[in-house]
Amino acid sequence: MQPYVESLSTCPKHGLHNPFKSPERYLLYGDISAKAAHMLSVPKVLDFFTRLIQRVAPKSYQQALGEVQVTQKFLENFSGDQVRFLARSFAVPGNHLGQQSHGFRWPYGPVAIITPFNFPLEIPVLQLMGALYMGNKPVLKVDSKVCIVMEQMMRLLHYCGLPVEDVDFINSDGKTMNKLLLEANPRMTLFTGSSRVADKLAVDLKGRIKLEDAGFDWKILGPDVNEVDYVAWVCDQDAYACSGQKCSAQSILFMHENWSGTSLLSKMKDLAERRKLEDLTVGPVLTFTTEAIVEHMNKLLQIPGSKLLFGGKPLENHSIPSIYGALKPTAIYVPLEEMLKESNYELVTREIFGPFQIITDYKKDQLPLVLEALERMHAHLTAAVVSNDPLFLQEVIGKSVNGTTYAGLRARTTGAPQNHWFGPAGDPRGAGIGTPEAIKLVWSCHREIIYDIGPLPKHWEIPPST
Amino acid sequence: MQPYVESLSTCPKHGLHNPFKSPERYLLYGDISAKAAHMLSVPKVLDFFTRLIQRVAPKSYQQALGEVQVTQKFLENFSGDQVRFLARSFAVPGNHLGQQSHGFRWPYGPVAIITPFNFPLEIPVLQLMGALYMGNKPVLKVDSKVCIVMEQMMRLLHYCGLPVEDVDFINSDGKTMNKLLLEANPRMTLFTGSSRVADKLAVDLKGRIKLEDAGFDWKILGPDVNEVDYVAWVCDQDAYACSGQKCSAQSILFMHENWSGTSLLSKMKDLAERRKLEDLTVGPVLTFTTEAIVEHMNKLLQIPGSKLLFGGKPLENHSIPSIYGALKPTAIYVPLEEMLKESNYELVTREIFGPFQIITDYKKDQLPLVLEALERMHAHLTAAVVSNDPLFLQEVIGKSVNGTTYAGLRARTTGAPQNHWFGPAGDPRGAGIGTPEAIKLVWSCHREIIYDIGPLPKHWEIPPST
Amino acid sequence: MQPYVESLSTCPKHGLHNPFKSPERYLLYGDISAKAAHMLSVPKVLDFFTRLIQRVAPKSYQQALGEVQVTQKFLENFSGDQVRFLARSFAVPGNHLGQQSHGFRWPYGPVAIITPFNFPLEIPVLQLMGALYMGNKPVLKVDSKVCIVMEQMMRLLHYCGLPVEDVDFINSDGKTMNKLLLEANPRMTLFTGSSRVADKLAVDLKGRIKLEDAGFDWKILGPDVNEVDYVAWVCDQDAYACSGQKCSAQSILFMHENWSGTSLLSKMKDLAERRKLEDLTVGPVLTFTTEAIVEHMNKLLQIPGSKLLFGGKPLENHSIPSIYGALKPTAIYVPLEEMLKESNYELVTREIFGPFQIITDYKKDQLPLVLEALERMHAHLTAAVVSNDPLFLQEVIGKSVNGTTYAGLRARTTGAPQNHWFGPAGDPRGAGIGTPEAIKLVWSCHREIIYDIGPLPKHWEIPPST
Amino acid sequence: MQPYVESLSTCPKHGLHNPFKSPERYLLYGDISAKAAHMLSVPKVLDFFTRLIQRVAPKSYQQALGEVQVTQKFLENFSGDQVRFLARSFAVPGNHLGQQSHGFRWPYGPVAIITPFNFPLEIPVLQLMGALYMGNKPVLKVDSKVCIVMEQMMRLLHYCGLPVEDVDFINSDGKTMNKLLLEANPRMTLFTGSSRVADKLAVDLKGRIKLEDAGFDWKILGPDVNEVDYVAWVCDQDAYACSGQKCSAQSILFMHENWSGTSLLSKMKDLAERRKLEDLTVGPVLTFTTEAIVEHMNKLLQIPGSKLLFGGKPLENHSIPSIYGALKPTAIYVPLEEMLKESNYELVTREIFGPFQIITDYKKDQLPLVLEALERMHAHLTAAVVSNDPLFLQEVIGKSVNGTTYAGLRARTTGAPQNHWFGPAGDPRGAGIGTPEAIKLVWSCHREIIYDIGPLPKHWEIPPST
Repeated sequence: MQPYVESLSTCPKHGLHNPFKSPERYLLYGDISAKAAHMLSVPKVLDFFTRLIQRVAPKSYQQALGEVQVTQKFLENFSGDQVRFLARSFAVPGNHLGQQSHGFRWPYGPVAIITPFNFPLEIPVLQLMGALYMGNKPVLKVDSKVCIVMEQMMRLLHYCGLPVEDVDFINSDGKTMNKLLLEANPRMTLFTGSSRVADKLAVDLKGRIKLEDAGFDWKILGPDVNEVDYVAWVCDQDAYACSGQKCSAQSILFMHENWSGTSLLSKMKDLAERRKLEDLTVGPVLTFTTEAIVEHMNKLLQIPGSKLLFGGKPLENHSIPSIYGALKPTAIYVPLEEMLKESNYELVTREIFGPFQIITDYKKDQLPLVLEALERMHAHLTAAVVSNDPLFLQEVIGKSVNGTTYAGLRARTTGAPQNHWFGPAGDPRGAGIGTPEAIKLVWSCHREIIYDIGPLPKHWEIPPST
Repeated sequence: MQPYVESLSTCPKHGLHNPFKSPERYLLYGDISAKAAHMLSVPKVLDFFTRLIQRVAPKSYQQALGEVQVTQKFLENFSGDQVRFLARSFAVPGNHLGQQSHGFRWPYGPVAIITPFNFPLEIPVLQLMGALYMGNKPVLKVDSKVCIVMEQMMRLLHYCGLPVEDVDFINSDGKTMNKLLLEANPRMTLFTGSSRVADKLAVDLKGRIKLEDAGFDWKILGPDVNEVDYVAWVCDQDAYACSGQKCSAQSILFMHENWSGTSLLSKMKDLAERRKLEDLTVGPVLTFTTEAIVEHMNKLLQIPGSKLLFGGKPLENHSIPSIYGALKPTAIYVPLEEMLKESNYELVTREIFGPFQIITDYKKDQLPLVLEALERMHAHLTAAVVSNDPLFLQEVIGKSVNGTTYAGLRARTTGAPQNHWFGPAGDPRGAGIGTPEAIKLVWSCHREIIYDIGPLPKHWEIPPST
Repeated sequence: MQPYVESLSTCPKHGLHNPFKSPERYLLYGDISAKAAHMLSVPKVLDFFTRLIQRVAPKSYQQALGEVQVTQKFLENFSGDQVRFLARSFAVPGNHLGQQSHGFRWPYGPVAIITPFNFPLEIPVLQLMGALYMGNKPVLKVDSKVCIVMEQMMRLLHYCGLPVEDVDFINSDGKTMNKLLLEANPRMTLFTGSSRVADKLAVDLKGRIKLEDAGFDWKILGPDVNEVDYVAWVCDQDAYACSGQKCSAQSILFMHENWSGTSLLSKMKDLAERRKLEDLTVGPVLTFTTEAIVEHMNKLLQIPGSKLLFGGKPLENHSIPSIYGALKPTAIYVPLEEMLKESNYELVTREIFGPFQIITDYKKDQLPLVLEALERMHAHLTAAVVSNDPLFLQEVIGKSVNGTTYAGLRARTTGAPQNHWFGPAGDPRGAGIGTPEAIKLVWSCHREIIYDIGPLPKHWEIPPST
Repeated sequence: MQPYVESLSTCPKHGLHNPFKSPERYLLYGDISAKAAHMLSVPKVLDFFTRLIQRVAPKSYQQALGEVQVTQKFLENFSGDQVRFLARSFAVPGNHLGQQSHGFRWPYGPVAIITPFNFPLEIPVLQLMGALYMGNKPVLKVDSKVCIVMEQMMRLLHYCGLPVEDVDFINSDGKTMNKLLLEANPRMTLFTGSSRVADKLAVDLKGRIKLEDAGFDWKILGPDVNEVDYVAWVCDQDAYACSGQKCSAQSILFMHENWSGTSLLSKMKDLAERRKLEDLTVGPVLTFTTEAIVEHMNKLLQIPGSKLLFGGKPLENHSIPSIYGALKPTAIYVPLEEMLKESNYELVTREIFGPFQIITDYKKDQLPLVLEALERMHAHLTAAVVSNDPLFLQEVIGKSVNGTTYAGLRARTTGAPQNHWFGPAGDPRGAGIGTPEAIKLVWSCHREIIYDIGPLPKHWEIPPST
């Protein structure tokens, strides 16, 4: 561990570069990004990383491909001068001749990044490059089960010009990493992962963190029923793609009663049932065993009025080790009034990181109950309001707080592209990923330089003390 | 305490207003600000608050007046439509017709503000109004010794239209406040005060805080000697105004050897000695006893080569209670090489919140040692680089990290006006105060709303699962 | 005229102030604005200007009051530091150490402002102050019929601290003003008025102008019928308030066939008929005689299928001089297909600056014809799409170009508040008014300062020529 | 010509795309840019375009290469999502629930671009792509002598995905182009070229233009003498690279008297004399004959005190046709006081688009005369203030107006990279090129959409007319 501590300590608090130090490094990173973006766009490289992701993370070719493509686009976004444009400052005239105040984005210097198993390429690359763009020196830890993907990507980045001493890449268990953090004391730590670890880190690091943790992500279908096929397909993808192992996966669906008479649920059932292990459109669950999920399911089914809509059975004919879960895509109906009861609420809103969702419905005048359910949740990551009724959208958006909320007929909960903000809201520790705004927020702080060069007023004399 | 807990709990996480809820309240706060700004500009109101501050905080009329004037200008800044302009969002075209992603500034809802004794009006008003502008409901605790100032200001704000239920104002000791925070669990807490309490709160609140804590603020005089009278006067004000009880007060002065041959130190001595208790240009120290400071001074004087430059004696002929400190403005010289020694560094860079500074000097080729001294400090609030040599400025600015750094012949360490950012840098928990950027950073978070209204592509069909 | 030419010539091209010259003047203008805003908020001053406007411009008390209130809010918006915030610049790191590029907003220096009769206070104050904020020295000409209002306002501004030498106020006819412009050669001229004069000025001044000219403003009622009373009332106000003498007045209404079965038209008729001369809810038309309007009306009525819906008669029992027009609020129906004919189009879309509108309707599948009608218009100022159907809004907004377009159930064509952009689109000469964006666009230009201070690379040697 | 008129007329005023129409085209242009950037980075393509430029424009390999590289970096800058980020809008809460005002960047639709001979690739590509990015359909005319370069580039762009119908490329003389403009009536025309043509177009097109025209670019050497070799080399490059045929070329040099005692002028002479026709470090002048320049030189030499510093002779042993100029790099000294005389000023400040500069000097107290000389110039494109004295820089910058001004020891007048604004200041018709700010200013206008969707206040009733 000591080499990591020492390496991090070589980076001063003012970073490897800032607007007054080695600005040519902003250009270097523009070049690295352009080159790496081009490399990832080469079909055989694209395919290589897609398949490499599939070897370690349970997702289909298309889903893995999407991850590489988002990474590729992100790198294109910071080609050329776009890295230095991130360091854009502003200035305002001062009180007298010679005074101007300037607001800069300043690096933190030595920093740490900890990323999870479910996006082995996208999350580490986007956070790592963001940290580097702003002038930081990161130590990066990717979940050990999947870190081979990033290990290969580091080599590609080195090939594209990344100085080897700019990043420390560590493979370790969480305990070792925790110890490293306490010893090396990075100025900022970005953690993406579970709320439990997030809260522990927040305490250990005295709040010097940015977090992107869990999400019990909801979708509300509004009163205007339209395009049932489309909505069913989006629900299926939101809940079950990557076997539900996205922090943005749809955890609960609130249906307006107008949708009850439609074929929505039966279509969702059909779509869920066409998923299969062979092409990884459903696959192993890495953080829950089959038994644990089934036990959770059974508890839910004891709530009066609840019922299994589809799924609920283990996958068959597979060789998934028993430390993992293996469940058919599952949906459980729980009545809204029951869900809201003190005794049930925590149970129903427990996030299961797997192909599992709660479905409920609400009557025309029950929207306030739905909003109450949202308010009582803890993790506010993604959400969807499926409606083209502007007054309905206004009501739900204005009374909720999820960080990435999709609105409109085509609303979804998943989809974390590089072009818009993705992250939780409502928490001052919340991180974003990938966009210029997210990079500036997470990987830099404000520094104000006030120039005050004179000249002094003519005939200036020492005034009385104050 | 219970009424406070309950009152805070009435505010949902989406706040009292946001761009989709009660937007007329942005205008209400523009009106309140315009009216309150006008009230504070009325001479007798201005005088009333100035004298009220003087009754509880040890500062001269001019210093107290400055505090009211900054508050008045701040309120002018957010007159009319300027509060709603703080809620300005942005949007970017999406991937297909009907999609647009919008980035909003969202409130936290229930929040807390804790402010210290030394600026009884400016700090609470600027942070309180910032919190309210963005749609939060704050509970406000001002240091008990001085909270009468804010109590009066609350009445003025109510008179100007502030709804009484928007703010809870609490008078309590720190222990009670800590308990309140743990129970009421505000979504964000702004703390201005000591580093010790800041770190405790960071742990207690699991990092859901923004901090503006201590500053061991440095000033460097560069190689170009100019306007010695002016620089001496600024040093005197920076170190001793408000008896040094500003978090931005000059704690250490690094002089380039070119200044040694000048009358700078003797002028600083003369200026320090004209300060007197009668007009509060020097006064009681609230957080250290005289004995404690003298003891600290004596430890410093045991460092080889160190010496008392001026001051170092208790004030005379006063009735300051012995629980407070009462010291003449003091400066102690410590050689740079000694300061950097492991055994001395912590001692020399201990912040004394009183009329007390360290002075050292450096030779032409010793700038790297000065920069090392800066790097090893912990709290990076304000700083000054007194030089009009652009290459010298570049070197020092590029290799340091203080949040509010003045540069140029007229550089100072104090002065926290409403027109530019004021706050620490280098810490992800760091808060700013008063400017649009500070308000948006501290009192709101990013929320992304992605509209995706369609229409669907013609002849859309359900694609395969992924 | 000569004193005006000379006065203007005293102002250099770099203006009375800029970020590197007299920055204290930004603060001066913040103070002037705060004081003038407060003065205008004093009830008797507010009433004085409201009645003064009424003496020269034919509008009701409420309409005149609205003009003063918008002016008052505008001044609040630029209180305190907000004028200097308009001069905010940005900077980006350069290619090597010591290089940074800065983008500033720079004044034009000597400029001219020409404003029309219909808003004797709002338009001149907003444009004048915008010009001054950015550092220009304006000569101001307000239409002679109404310039007494601005003459009084100039005195109020002087009282609030405006330096008398900063503005030249001229009362003259257009011919003299034209001569002055040619002789004094201001660097920029803002003209608000007729398209005819605008085009002449554009040629005379070789394009060194910004314009806000005519608007043949349209409103479209979408397929979703709702709140008929409200929509009728908004139509009445849009078409007939200030006797239609707003550049934003509703000139044509396109009704979706779904509105035909409603009481909309009969309600509009009722509302039009309650307008009366006594309270100036209808009044004299300053730029057309009654005969001219009636002649125009008669030509329209010869179009097959066209008909008089209401009005069409001269006002009675009045003493309005015959050089002005005096007509009851009038609406004429013209079939859409007829309107689009080459022979009719120019006639139907001629802007009548009076209480006069065209009404037409369209069938479900005729939206393309409506869009064609919009595309063929010349002046693209305001517009309204009255619909809460997001796909309909998207279609109309995406295929039109008016600069200030209201969308939604409550859409209107009039209303030029201080808080959002108001101005034409689609013309590089187009001006905006009152918002920070408009002020920066109209009254300043970009200037880039690239600092490149070194140091030189070590061992730099002269390279070969290129 | 007719096909061009017709093609342009197919594009509506709302453009080929905007945020509410075909937003996928923003992505298309991000892709085209990424691909074209990659193509231009391929060595043989880079070399091809460099040599092609050299075949038609008289510049060295390095200068031609620089042009291709700037173009390549520009294209990198707008890869991925960066084109849609140009269309970023903003929004502000309205007056009541349901109201929000949005400011968009809207295209002009059909537009024209006219570019000169001296940068056959950079100027047309940067302006063309900027126009396309924002949704316009341009007709592009490049100076006939050099248009083969752009003809080849169009093929490359088509290969990279540019839809052929998006751009019309015309080869014609100026007269035909003028006729086309009058007939096709583009909504905006960007002209880069001579002031004479610019002013004619401004009148012909009634001001619907943006211009980048001449520059009589100045450089001032401040009182602090440093790095004489470096400054001499920059002067040589600024004045004579591309044989002075850059609109940013150094036209006049003002030397502080402190530089007189140095070897600066003799070094400039040496550097000028090493330029040679073989490698095109000096070459033909396309817009003046040798005789014309010599005649101009002789007039200058009749001014009392003026003298030839170096050059002044025709090039020898060449086959440059006599319709072009062929002159050795030339510098003529003119005394400052003489230059300022009414009778001499126009002569001395006449821009010669060739390897020709004026040199003068000023004494310590003559800076006001220098500033007067700057103020009286007409075209304010680039400038340089060679000084690291911040008060001197402040004085000169604050009292001048050139659009692209370099400041500091390493200041130059030439260098129009893609990363910072390049364009004139002080003229409302002034265009910029290449940066996000320039593209948005030149190729789009503001459009405000105010959503006002309701709901109506409960119990709303029709108010009285106003």
